[in-house]
Amino acid sequence: MSNLNKNLKKDLKKVESLMRKNLSKEPLVKDLYDYIFDKSGKKIRASISLISSHGVKKNQQNRLKLAAVIELLHTATLVHDDIIDNSGLRRGKKTVNLAWSNSHGVLIGDFIYSKAFMLMNEIGNLKVIDELSSATNKIAEGELMQLANKHNLDISLSQLKRISYYKTGRLFEASAKSAAMLSGKSASFIENISKAAKLIGIVFQVRDDLLDYGISERDIGKPEMQDILEDKITYPLYFALKSSSKKDTLKILKKLKNKDFSLEDISDFVSSSSAFNKCNSLIESYSNEISKCINKLSNKEIRDEMLNLSDSLKSRYE
Amino acid sequence: MSNLNKNLKKDLKKVESLMRKNLSKEPLVKDLYDYIFDKSGKKIRASISLISSHGVKKNQQNRLKLAAVIELLHTATLVHDDIIDNSGLRRGKKTVNLAWSNSHGVLIGDFIYSKAFMLMNEIGNLKVIDELSSATNKIAEGELMQLANKHNLDISLSQLKRISYYKTGRLFEASAKSAAMLSGKSASFIENISKAAKLIGIVFQVRDDLLDYGISERDIGKPEMQDILEDKITYPLYFALKSSSKKDTLKILKKLKNKDFSLEDISDFVSSSSAFNKCNSLIESYSNEISKCINKLSNKEIRDEMLNLSDSLKSRYE
Repeated sequence: MSNLNKNLKKDLKKVESLMRKNLSKEPLVKDLYDYIFDKSGKKIRASISLISSHGVKKNQQNRLKLAAVIELLHTATLVHDDIIDNSGLRRGKKTVNLAWSNSHGVLIGDFIYSKAFMLMNEIGNLKVIDELSSATNKIAEGELMQLANKHNLDISLSQLKRISYYKTGRLFEASAKSAAMLSGKSASFIENISKAAKLIGIVFQVRDDLLDYGISERDIGKPEMQDILEDKITYPLYFALKSSSKKDTLKILKKLKNKDFSLEDISDFVSSSSAFNKCNSLIESYSNEISKCINKLSNKEIRDEMLNLSDSLKSRYE
Repeated sequence: MSNLNKNLKKDLKKVESLMRKNLSKEPLVKDLYDYIFDKSGKKIRASISLISSHGVKKNQQNRLKLAAVIELLHTATLVHDDIIDNSGLRRGKKTVNLAWSNSHGVLIGDFIYSKAFMLMNEIGNLKVIDELSSATNKIAEGELMQLANKHNLDISLSQLKRISYYKTGRLFEASAKSAAMLSGKSASFIENISKAAKLIGIVFQVRDDLLDYGISERDIGKPEMQDILEDKITYPLYFALKSSSKKDTLKILKKLKNKDFSLEDISDFVSSSSAFNKCNSLIESYSNEISKCINKLSNKEIRDEMLNLSDSLKSRYE
């Protein structure tokens, strides 16, 4: 096990405690924090940030703070997303909007966002602040694009790609980029690790869309077939519509347009098409690009850790 | 008319166009922006910011950008507030949550927040970024405190004051403070103008609470008696409960606790008590403090403009 790998878990523990630093005394804020941060997530973005700044001795505290900022931003988007999607479950437990209310979700999301910016200011690097506020803005834009394309059965592959870049890839990219910039890495290192992280994020999203279509039998902590219930056309349905026989496609389009379908109709249509294969090919082609970028990084520990992360995410079941 | 007063309107026009700088090409974002920024508000916070940085020649562009940032932050909180309050009307037109949906409101609010931070970064002053992110955080905390105190008929005056400081006064204060800091004013100027602005914000909130109880016959662009419909105990009801006869108070408390009341019951109870007088006394006592702070400012134009603003807000009808 590499030095980086050994330290990652230890560092993530420290990141967790930084996320709750200087918390408000208001009991409701405390309750909501306890609830939201009780089940610690995978902290993929914090990990990418820590990996990207590995090997630099100076100012370890800022390195950890940055990872905490990124997880806070991500958590705020999750809390708001659950309102958008009207979700009832997140990581196997009730969402804030269900356990409390939409109002609580909106406000604690705003609270966490601004806490993230406050912690970011402590680091005091304007380039980092700029990269992370721009990423936060793109996440909202991506979500709005997704909202604008609800029911859009004519959505194009490039639109789908832009949405998954903005809403998911962009923060992965910013996690790598801000950390690499903060730790003073070379321009080519910054470029390669940011691109790798961005594509890992997009693959993460494609895999998410696949998991929603029930390609795994395992319990992923949230119900399946949520996307179509929320009128979202994601990669699997897109590819199914593009690759099925004209007859089958017209039949399902009619049902979708008339909103007269069962989840089984859609599930059968997608799984009997070549959609899953096409999604996996897309993942493979991104993975090749990711490997190329990662292999250009000079530090072996960072290469190993990034490849490891990329591999585990593209075949994850939860 | 002073030089400051003449320039304020011109500057506010420039602020308006800065608020829409570098906007996304996404049609939905444009539509929402057109809708939200169609009826330009009073821009009180931008005015406070411009007044507080008056008289400094260097970097006028940053001075205007800061005012735009502050209005963007304020607009984002309004959009989110309308979701919290389930409001249907804002400035006489439908709210985003009603005209589109809650999801649109959450996301365009997040979008505007992060745009504000991006514009803030262009100014590139860490103290300003820190002051404004801390203010944003306090607004969310104040709103959460208000949410936590719904139905709380035992709410104290100090709790009410803290809520109105956090949710309203804090951004007024930050508008003055960040602008005064950015333009390199003296420590005593910063202290006095920030305190005046903070208290003007609190007075603004007390007046808002009064207007909700229908002390004006004019159309304020939103329906009256919303606070009690949202189970919020505000200054007028608080003072009415504290100053009425035991018998009347017990009667209304029983109705409130059983949620068995008409708006007329509450309105009559409050207006027949000394609540409005007590609110006005509170406003007067804050106004005295405000004048004291303002009179310590050495620049006559700034003093006049701040007193003018303070006077017009405490007796406003909309």
